[in-house]
Amino acid sequence: MKITSVNNDLVKETAKLLRGKYRDETGLFLIEGEKGVKEAISAGVNIERIFVLEGIKDYPKEKIIETTEAVLSKISDAKSAPKVVAVAQQVKTEVNDIKKAKRVILLEGIKDAGNLGTILRTASAFGIDGIVLYGDTVDLYNPKCVRSTVGCLWKTPVIKVNDFKELKNIFTPYERVATLPARINVIKLENYIPSEKVLIMFGSEADGLSEELKNFATKNVTIEMAENVESLNLSISVGVVAYKLKQV
Amino acid sequence: MKITSVNNDLVKETAKLLRGKYRDETGLFLIEGEKGVKEAISAGVNIERIFVLEGIKDYPKEKIIETTEAVLSKISDAKSAPKVVAVAQQVKTEVNDIKKAKRVILLEGIKDAGNLGTILRTASAFGIDGIVLYGDTVDLYNPKCVRSTVGCLWKTPVIKVNDFKELKNIFTPYERVATLPARINVIKLENYIPSEKVLIMFGSEADGLSEELKNFATKNVTIEMAENVESLNLSISVGVVAYKLKQV
Repeated sequence: MKITSVNNDLVKETAKLLRGKYRDETGLFLIEGEKGVKEAISAGVNIERIFVLEGIKDYPKEKIIETTEAVLSKISDAKSAPKVVAVAQQVKTEVNDIKKAKRVILLEGIKDAGNLGTILRTASAFGIDGIVLYGDTVDLYNPKCVRSTVGCLWKTPVIKVNDFKELKNIFTPYERVATLPARINVIKLENYIPSEKVLIMFGSEADGLSEELKNFATKNVTIEMAENVESLNLSISVGVVAYKLKQV
Repeated sequence: MKITSVNNDLVKETAKLLRGKYRDETGLFLIEGEKGVKEAISAGVNIERIFVLEGIKDYPKEKIIETTEAVLSKISDAKSAPKVVAVAQQVKTEVNDIKKAKRVILLEGIKDAGNLGTILRTASAFGIDGIVLYGDTVDLYNPKCVRSTVGCLWKTPVIKVNDFKELKNIFTPYERVATLPARINVIKLENYIPSEKVLIMFGSEADGLSEELKNFATKNVTIEMAENVESLNLSISVGVVAYKLKQV
């Protein structure tokens, strides 16, 4: 198949997937770049169609749509148009799969898509086996987030939890750790020894953890740092904690 | 002083500081946002002038230029115009200051301004006392980098080193560590015990460390990670290593 017009209906429909609302409605999302698309195929992600720059052949023939740079640019929000953009089905993690996880990271109200992608990549590297997006967060399938995972979007199960009751249902059996700035009654990360099943909770950079989640915690942990520095980038905090969990 | 026209000469001159070439020529740079400007003032950074949205008063009176949102938007590359933009003098670190540092991070060919800013913020938090930008790197005074440091631009001395001879002159007395993907003859980070003075070298995400720097290394260290993950985000790698250095 070949499409050269940016006004083609399938192109227009595909471009709508740049918006979260349309991704929610359809359960589809966009993967940009050859590496990402190949990783998705080998991970068994269901691919609906693959827009490629004319001449690129190395994808399942029945899925390929040969097209132009202008079309690829229209269906991507990357600074320079990728050579390949795939439309894929979102992977839905079941709550029961998360219940099996031993090292779970919760991100409350995370808004930065790049940070979320980097966290997914880091989580995969350091053996985190579950991620919870809690409250009002950026969409996992935001193209910038997908890019920032560098092919690690499908390696760690992710669930979206909106209300506290559901969170309690799933994680009551877990040790629940609030990560907090240094203060009284907080364990330093270097002294923290995790239980077999742990949920480590991180607040957003702007607001920190909500009172609800602070009260849900069974332990408080802080990352030791210089006094004249207010905080760390969220993905760095998660990276340091996840690395530490891997060591114990 | 008050300026309302985006075509005012001082506004045009200030907007030029969004470009690296002009920053190099003048030794000036831009700081956006109230928090960043206040941190710079309290850190003793020399401020030439401060453009503020009409009505904002809490800066040294003789430096203030009251202006409009349109002007502030013109002299910033942030998505939404900041309320305050200062023109400041770049802080130059002397080579002799770096020679006193005990925990130095070298970044070879780093191109991502956001990553560099995050690394500076992380370095300050974890007691890194010197940063070396080696080879062809993004400019430290790039506005995006300045933003990503979240007020930590002046807390760790940074030098730019362009040639290998100069690097050798400064760091021959140091233990020099190449951070590498896992392979034979590499120490795992968890087993690495640093000497008193160390230079930890990181390659760019795209290209890794150059052969020159690999040969300059006296030790090779790797961050242990899952086999199905190719690499970490550079700032995460630096964060994990810097945290580890703080523990020993």
